[in-house]
Amino acid sequence: MSVATLDFDRYARRGYPEAVLCQGKSVAQLVEITRAWRERAARQDLGPVLFTRVSPEQAEVVLAELPDAHHDETSSLIAWPAEPPRPTGGRVVVVCAGTADLRVAREATLTARYLGREVTEVVDVGVAGLDRILSKRDVLRSADVVVAVAGMDAALVPVVAGLVACPVVAVPTSVGYGVAFEGVSALLSMLNSCSPGVGVVNIDNGYGAGHLAAQIAAPKDKPHA
Amino acid sequence: MSVATLDFDRYARRGYPEAVLCQGKSVAQLVEITRAWRERAARQDLGPVLFTRVSPEQAEVVLAELPDAHHDETSSLIAWPAEPPRPTGGRVVVVCAGTADLRVAREATLTARYLGREVTEVVDVGVAGLDRILSKRDVLRSADVVVAVAGMDAALVPVVAGLVACPVVAVPTSVGYGVAFEGVSALLSMLNSCSPGVGVVNIDNGYGAGHLAAQIAAPKDKPHA
Amino acid sequence: MSVATLDFDRYARRGYPEAVLCQGKSVAQLVEITRAWRERAARQDLGPVLFTRVSPEQAEVVLAELPDAHHDETSSLIAWPAEPPRPTGGRVVVVCAGTADLRVAREATLTARYLGREVTEVVDVGVAGLDRILSKRDVLRSADVVVAVAGMDAALVPVVAGLVACPVVAVPTSVGYGVAFEGVSALLSMLNSCSPGVGVVNIDNGYGAGHLAAQIAAPKDKPHA
Amino acid sequence: MSVATLDFDRYARRGYPEAVLCQGKSVAQLVEITRAWRERAARQDLGPVLFTRVSPEQAEVVLAELPDAHHDETSSLIAWPAEPPRPTGGRVVVVCAGTADLRVAREATLTARYLGREVTEVVDVGVAGLDRILSKRDVLRSADVVVAVAGMDAALVPVVAGLVACPVVAVPTSVGYGVAFEGVSALLSMLNSCSPGVGVVNIDNGYGAGHLAAQIAAPKDKPHA
Amino acid sequence: MSVATLDFDRYARRGYPEAVLCQGKSVAQLVEITRAWRERAARQDLGPVLFTRVSPEQAEVVLAELPDAHHDETSSLIAWPAEPPRPTGGRVVVVCAGTADLRVAREATLTARYLGREVTEVVDVGVAGLDRILSKRDVLRSADVVVAVAGMDAALVPVVAGLVACPVVAVPTSVGYGVAFEGVSALLSMLNSCSPGVGVVNIDNGYGAGHLAAQIAAPKDKPHA
Amino acid sequence: MSVATLDFDRYARRGYPEAVLCQGKSVAQLVEITRAWRERAARQDLGPVLFTRVSPEQAEVVLAELPDAHHDETSSLIAWPAEPPRPTGGRVVVVCAGTADLRVAREATLTARYLGREVTEVVDVGVAGLDRILSKRDVLRSADVVVAVAGMDAALVPVVAGLVACPVVAVPTSVGYGVAFEGVSALLSMLNSCSPGVGVVNIDNGYGAGHLAAQIAAPKDKPHA
Amino acid sequence: MSVATLDFDRYARRGYPEAVLCQGKSVAQLVEITRAWRERAARQDLGPVLFTRVSPEQAEVVLAELPDAHHDETSSLIAWPAEPPRPTGGRVVVVCAGTADLRVAREATLTARYLGREVTEVVDVGVAGLDRILSKRDVLRSADVVVAVAGMDAALVPVVAGLVACPVVAVPTSVGYGVAFEGVSALLSMLNSCSPGVGVVNIDNGYGAGHLAAQIAAPKDKPHA
Amino acid sequence: MSVATLDFDRYARRGYPEAVLCQGKSVAQLVEITRAWRERAARQDLGPVLFTRVSPEQAEVVLAELPDAHHDETSSLIAWPAEPPRPTGGRVVVVCAGTADLRVAREATLTARYLGREVTEVVDVGVAGLDRILSKRDVLRSADVVVAVAGMDAALVPVVAGLVACPVVAVPTSVGYGVAFEGVSALLSMLNSCSPGVGVVNIDNGYGAGHLAAQIAAPKDKPHA
Repeated sequence: MSVATLDFDRYARRGYPEAVLCQGKSVAQLVEITRAWRERAARQDLGPVLFTRVSPEQAEVVLAELPDAHHDETSSLIAWPAEPPRPTGGRVVVVCAGTADLRVAREATLTARYLGREVTEVVDVGVAGLDRILSKRDVLRSADVVVAVAGMDAALVPVVAGLVACPVVAVPTSVGYGVAFEGVSALLSMLNSCSPGVGVVNIDNGYGAGHLAAQIAAPKDKPHA
Repeated sequence: MSVATLDFDRYARRGYPEAVLCQGKSVAQLVEITRAWRERAARQDLGPVLFTRVSPEQAEVVLAELPDAHHDETSSLIAWPAEPPRPTGGRVVVVCAGTADLRVAREATLTARYLGREVTEVVDVGVAGLDRILSKRDVLRSADVVVAVAGMDAALVPVVAGLVACPVVAVPTSVGYGVAFEGVSALLSMLNSCSPGVGVVNIDNGYGAGHLAAQIAAPKDKPHA
Repeated sequence: MSVATLDFDRYARRGYPEAVLCQGKSVAQLVEITRAWRERAARQDLGPVLFTRVSPEQAEVVLAELPDAHHDETSSLIAWPAEPPRPTGGRVVVVCAGTADLRVAREATLTARYLGREVTEVVDVGVAGLDRILSKRDVLRSADVVVAVAGMDAALVPVVAGLVACPVVAVPTSVGYGVAFEGVSALLSMLNSCSPGVGVVNIDNGYGAGHLAAQIAAPKDKPHA
Repeated sequence: MSVATLDFDRYARRGYPEAVLCQGKSVAQLVEITRAWRERAARQDLGPVLFTRVSPEQAEVVLAELPDAHHDETSSLIAWPAEPPRPTGGRVVVVCAGTADLRVAREATLTARYLGREVTEVVDVGVAGLDRILSKRDVLRSADVVVAVAGMDAALVPVVAGLVACPVVAVPTSVGYGVAFEGVSALLSMLNSCSPGVGVVNIDNGYGAGHLAAQIAAPKDKPHA
Repeated sequence: MSVATLDFDRYARRGYPEAVLCQGKSVAQLVEITRAWRERAARQDLGPVLFTRVSPEQAEVVLAELPDAHHDETSSLIAWPAEPPRPTGGRVVVVCAGTADLRVAREATLTARYLGREVTEVVDVGVAGLDRILSKRDVLRSADVVVAVAGMDAALVPVVAGLVACPVVAVPTSVGYGVAFEGVSALLSMLNSCSPGVGVVNIDNGYGAGHLAAQIAAPKDKPHA
Repeated sequence: MSVATLDFDRYARRGYPEAVLCQGKSVAQLVEITRAWRERAARQDLGPVLFTRVSPEQAEVVLAELPDAHHDETSSLIAWPAEPPRPTGGRVVVVCAGTADLRVAREATLTARYLGREVTEVVDVGVAGLDRILSKRDVLRSADVVVAVAGMDAALVPVVAGLVACPVVAVPTSVGYGVAFEGVSALLSMLNSCSPGVGVVNIDNGYGAGHLAAQIAAPKDKPHA
Repeated sequence: MSVATLDFDRYARRGYPEAVLCQGKSVAQLVEITRAWRERAARQDLGPVLFTRVSPEQAEVVLAELPDAHHDETSSLIAWPAEPPRPTGGRVVVVCAGTADLRVAREATLTARYLGREVTEVVDVGVAGLDRILSKRDVLRSADVVVAVAGMDAALVPVVAGLVACPVVAVPTSVGYGVAFEGVSALLSMLNSCSPGVGVVNIDNGYGAGHLAAQIAAPKDKPHA
Repeated sequence: MSVATLDFDRYARRGYPEAVLCQGKSVAQLVEITRAWRERAARQDLGPVLFTRVSPEQAEVVLAELPDAHHDETSSLIAWPAEPPRPTGGRVVVVCAGTADLRVAREATLTARYLGREVTEVVDVGVAGLDRILSKRDVLRSADVVVAVAGMDAALVPVVAGLVACPVVAVPTSVGYGVAFEGVSALLSMLNSCSPGVGVVNIDNGYGAGHLAAQIAAPKDKPHA
């Protein structure tokens, strides 16, 4: 294959499967990659594969190659095989500030789930009405790691990090307008969190957040590293 | 006077006295301005005058001209005459996130006080420990306007604005390091506040915040406009 | 409802009704939110609800759920119920620099009106021809709060703030090209206003400006806080 | 105490002790804070306290109040009591790209150690000579969490994250000149890491990285949350 | 011709032919330029001409004028005459980090080839799986100049530059999202490369990189300068 | 008229006619403005009116109101009346670096011409082939003011300013890609010109440049100021 | 001389003398340049030479070489010979917004004066009190070119440009703090001026503004170009 | 040694010796590094070592360890051994725009010389007076690679690249003020060069430029790669 050098050994080497970022790839490249994957998976345990940021046109060609894959439209994610593995390790709680953040939060949820964790999702608990987040204190405190997803002022992050003892993975979103600057304001706010215990990923990077959360909550008998 | 054209009519025109931003002015210019003010004030009611961002060297020359002025070192502010006017209008509450924000908060407090308002100051109630701000709910709700001063993630602002019904004047501070970017992160966070009812001023502009708060809480029988 | 946790108590808690920022929400999410609102409003006084930044496609589904709502196309705003409350409190004057700023100014006007204030609108009085703004001095001075809407150099703001004694809420707009930088130039100019008494909101945030102005001009017998 | 509202319950609430960011605080404020801490610690188990970014002048006054504290000059950190707790939980490996990154790496090392983890430090293994990092593969793979500290191109981070299965906490440093932009280049590079499993903290924020790493490697019987 | 002043003497003067950047030119302008070129080329040796960043609509009109030209769709490049010159000088190796970088890498490859060099292309060897690039050490070390093409963290560049003794031309790409900032993150990372021996060109500028590489690997008997 | 407050006195007051920036205005607003202008022009000498940045859809409605106007498609400008005034004052030379800069250069040319100056246009003389600009030395030196239009490195500006004694008005264009940053690179380069005598206008602001050039080359018997 | 290649022919070629930007030059380099100038000036008419941004230490060595030079401390400028030429051409008016802008305004004033123009200076007429600038309408309208110097919101520029018919040269200053961003806010505001007829120079570039103004107001019998 | 892992094999591996960037290193670290180098050099051919960006205090301690080293104060560089190797390979020409750029140009010159090339330096030939650079055409055309050093508008780079057939290494400098933005303007200008054949290095990175130039002009019988 000339367009990509897939890292087929990653599952064996790191214990986490490969993912294909579809944005920026042509349909022809995607077909070639999907086929190569399917053929190799017939001979080797590659773990589940995730296709992220799949456009509708791209989804069509991936699903043509892998008709039994799961396609989640909210997060533009395709997973194959469709069934996530049985959960092991600790518990991930994904919390998001507003409805518009849901597409990113869901990408984190599904990624962590396909990487083998149990995940709970808490939606639309921004701090403008503080009671919404305070009423979720128990579920937050049951987590081994929290993924907090927010745009704009991102004030959810220091508030959540101040309420829990576990690590918080923060995902800025490009929600908002004007000086939201496509997520930059939320990113800066998160990196400046006055509560410690926060690790930040790229804007709208639900995949990266779910991956990191899955690693943090991994079972302690690391079989792969 | 050749270095400045003072706006002596401002007190009569707008009802609020002039202030002299000392940063960027030479000692010689400041002496000339202070003398011109003192001489004019002998003939006309100019209201109290504030000298803001006064360096120690500048403070010395201003106090040499106006020995009975009040000099607050925390906020680098000089006021003359030293005695603030008797408070009228509504109540201003100034709240700040951390100890390092105090110099800006104090500038807001004193400005509003010299412009004739009653002011209460609440210090170091950042949201990392949410109980600190929640325990101040009553004093916040007694305000006609809140001035919220914070750097870094500035999460104090949407939390406070979500707790009160009155307007909030938000002042970003240059506290912090790295991507605090000398207050830009806090500024963006405030402009993106998910709670409405927030008006923002320049970074570290305690004077502007105190001035605006004094206008918002002005008595309704506007004598000056 | 799984996509949003509406803050139904906000009207009771803060005295100001909820608003739904439609930008970034899917049509399905918006339908779900609108229905939840309508059903709750049948059982509880939620005050008027505003849908802001409504795309034509979104407007269609909101109006399908709330056929008697008011839809203003200039500002892309839907209000329900259609009739604003009887005005109380002080007077809001909304002033804008150019014709292209009108969509933002109108959003401020309608927001303040649905939040219960009397509002006057003054259009296209940029400072290139100073007589335009000087001829409006009387209406400006009749205001309890001025909302000043401008893009590009935003010089309208310091000029207006220098003419009145009341607070000025400044709204930068994304009007212009090149180094207008989608409103950033106007935002910086406003935050640097040489006239004090200016609180700034996010670029194009007519809703936030109208809300803040309504709070500033609220009647003094605050029933809600 | 009027200058600070210390969060004395944080150790009980979150399981992690308070830290005092000294930068931006006056000597007088620091004296007041240190005394308040010492007095409270006589009555309540507050855990170890860390003073970070201590200038030489500040160190003097803190050490005058807490003469038996430990002062590390490389990282400008003071810890009290001087003896770190006995390590529990997993293993932290701190790795840095160049000699100039050491002051930040050391802050991470000490923070994680005072928060109760075992920490190993690997210095000056930037990717310009790839053999340096490849020769450390075993110690890296023994980690439960890696803290990677780098400035400039920060290429150490994706290389390390590609070599291990555990989470990586990435700390950009302000090392470098020109378009290093005081650490912004390294920060962006880290947030864009082509290897997943990376959580990023603020520029030069060794404290935050050490804290997050300590949480990630915490023993699973969480006593505090 | 009124729309362009073509530099027909460039081939004679610099030894390298002209190229036409099609982006930003109208179809009418492009027709005029193509015709002028063809007519002049009938009378004078202008060398091969490259049309870069050709939109499909533009390609159509260029190919209508020069039907025997070569059109590469991956890189949106048209070359005329279609046959590259016989290679002279040293060897160019073009290496790219991911599949999405291929369009830029191919532009570099073709440019260097039409300027008379032998070029080898190595695709999708990002550092997340270090074995991919290490397995190409031999082909990299056979180069007289390497062109390294990468987006996001651009860590490929310092790793490659640390492996070879020859110069590296680095091309940042606009691949990625969020803080990839359309290639700015990769650009900064490359300019900060901890390995020396790297010269950087504009984002997505495969043409410029191929041109520079062709000059670096030029035969030493410079006939043109 | 409610959407605009036209400055009908500007021609009398400043000696230069009004212009209507069409970008950002709705079709309905533009119709209203055009009609108001036409009606007023029947009663008062307003001078020629320019409509700039006219989209094809906008051009249609303006030309429907003013069928005898001149529409230049290269620069998206409409002028009415179609015939420019007889030239007075000095000579303007408009010079641009590349073909893609022509749309901005032409806007400058036409603006200066409709404001009453004689204008010469010199196209595609970027400094990559220095002979192109050196061969135009005579026409450049015949100018009373030069308008220099360039994108990307904008090196044309210091080279031209070093060749002439008259003022140079510099217009950055948004031509280019990557770190051209939509004209910001050219703007910075021009503001940093090592040759003095350069005044810069906004990116792509051919109108502003033509206006300023017309003022600089105005006849000395100023009838209007 | 090895450190500089002075452009001794500039006065003959462009009609304007050379200037030496002292910032960034070592004392040794400055001595070498000053001597070379003095020696050449003994043999050739080089016109007056200006040394700009002279530090006190630099001033000392320049004055040691040219003891009869004029040193203006407000603007950190040295001119030699001390006597400006007899004024020719039109009239320059330099106007500045605040006292802190004076050092830049004075540099413009002296530069234009040493380049042979008559200059009037108007100080501290910012738009916060509009009467200050309106009272200067007559002197502004007597100008052939206005130099407007302002920091922060720079609203002085569109107001002045709206009042006069002649060209305006705008100089942003680094006065202010926070989002004044060392003059960037003022620069953007000026480039976005809603009044046409404004040419902008670099931040704090009083020299460049004075030079451009002198060229604009040059006598029409250009002897040099 | 605990503070640094020196890459002693680099000379053998890449054919180019190590360099020590002194900025950001403590005196104690530098002493440790210098000693380690000296001791190793007694047993192994490490080639010449360069210490760059040496502060006066640092220079003292390095020279105490290596008393026979060469210290160039203009470029703040120390080389050991003091004698550069006998030149091989092609010719490097270093050209700079202004006197203030000399410190960076000299660093490039010395680096290339200590890496074994013959270097010619051409100073102060900025394009404001085009004759200065045109008079150096012959020396420029004798080069195998040109290093062009410039700040501010950096127009020297496209002009030089348009005059020669060989590669150009461009070094932006932090010379200038205001929107020179510490070299960013020059950097952008260079990356946007309208002449192809330009590779850019970090701001003020004379070392990197000299290194790259030495590689480009290396003798073709590569003994090391």
